[in-house]
Amino acid sequence: MTTVPDKERLLAQVGFAVEIDKLKRVLRRNTLMDGSRRENDAEHSWYLGMLAMVFAEYAPPGADLDRVTAMLLVHDIVEIDAGDTFVYDLTAVEVQEKAERAAADRIFGLLPADQTAALRALWDEFEERRTPEARFAKALDRLAPMMANHHNEGGSWVRHGVTVDQVMEKVEIIREGSQALGDYATEIIELSAVRGHLARVRA
Amino acid sequence: MTTVPDKERLLAQVGFAVEIDKLKRVLRRNTLMDGSRRENDAEHSWYLGMLAMVFAEYAPPGADLDRVTAMLLVHDIVEIDAGDTFVYDLTAVEVQEKAERAAADRIFGLLPADQTAALRALWDEFEERRTPEARFAKALDRLAPMMANHHNEGGSWVRHGVTVDQVMEKVEIIREGSQALGDYATEIIELSAVRGHLARVRA
Ligand SMILES: [Ca+2]
Repeated sequence: MTTVPDKERLLAQVGFAVEIDKLKRVLRRNTLMDGSRRENDAEHSWYLGMLAMVFAEYAPPGADLDRVTAMLLVHDIVEIDAGDTFVYDLTAVEVQEKAERAAADRIFGLLPADQTAALRALWDEFEERRTPEARFAKALDRLAPMMANHHNEGGSWVRHGVTVDQVMEKVEIIREGSQALGDYATEIIELSAVRGHLARVRA
Repeated sequence: MTTVPDKERLLAQVGFAVEIDKLKRVLRRNTLMDGSRRENDAEHSWYLGMLAMVFAEYAPPGADLDRVTAMLLVHDIVEIDAGDTFVYDLTAVEVQEKAERAAADRIFGLLPADQTAALRALWDEFEERRTPEARFAKALDRLAPMMANHHNEGGSWVRHGVTVDQVMEKVEIIREGSQALGDYATEIIELSAVRGHLARVRA
């Protein structure tokens, strides 16, 4: 804590800030809720921060919600280098994990060492999904595109021919972070199947 | 705290979540740092959350940085109804304030009453700029477009013929929240003037 910052330190922080502006140009598979265009990772990350606030009461008892928010703001930054992966493309997931670790090294490495370690720890925690905070954060990350598809005539589910079974697997990840939000996701899926926005069997 | 949420409560929260998706479609005056398109309020809010994390050490001693982040995530939601105001358009500012209060009533009012009050309090705190947290949050909100313009050949400063004096007024707001970031903003402005990206006198 100092009001006369070390110049080199400030410049490293600014360099990181300039770099992460690129997250606004990383496009996801899902669209905005009105279907007008694809969502980008930066606005998605804001949205998850807001969901953490609004759905806070459904987090595991005692969870540190501020760390949930911090994880959510940071969790997609690696996609500046590694791009987005569609969660139903399983073969791509392993290749992606390696690319994301390299991205984490490079991008968080732009910061002063103490901050590199702090942001890397947040990202590792999110990815490992061992703490209640990480499980809740991941639940929100999985829930948000379901909400977007549900409010947009099936959205990317329809375009990619996703089935009820495939989405129900993701619901387990939500339920691990929040029983209540897992129940809500199940309701969304059942309703989407009834509406024909999710296939009962693979096309 | 409950794992069996009151259905009506959950539906109000979902209604709010669906509504705030619109923030992704509210465009600001400034562009992304690469100049490729205008920035939207949602990705801007994410960016400010990240700046709060990265520039945390320049906050007033003892400031609650988690409340800074929460304020930053919430601060622009009123623009879903009220739109963005260019900070150098002074006549528009008063009209805008009234529209923003009405927007806060409507949008935060979609939530259950306790959450309406909590988010409204965050927004009021940000707007009133009386606490160290609000002053630091506002400093970041003012600094971000300066950084964007500085890294994009003057950006909206050039397009709108903004002068050094006009931007220096905004630097005072930054300095009230953070001496160190005020100094950094001053450097940016001096460099931008030298490069001809900020006018010395009004055109
Ligand atoms: Ca993600």
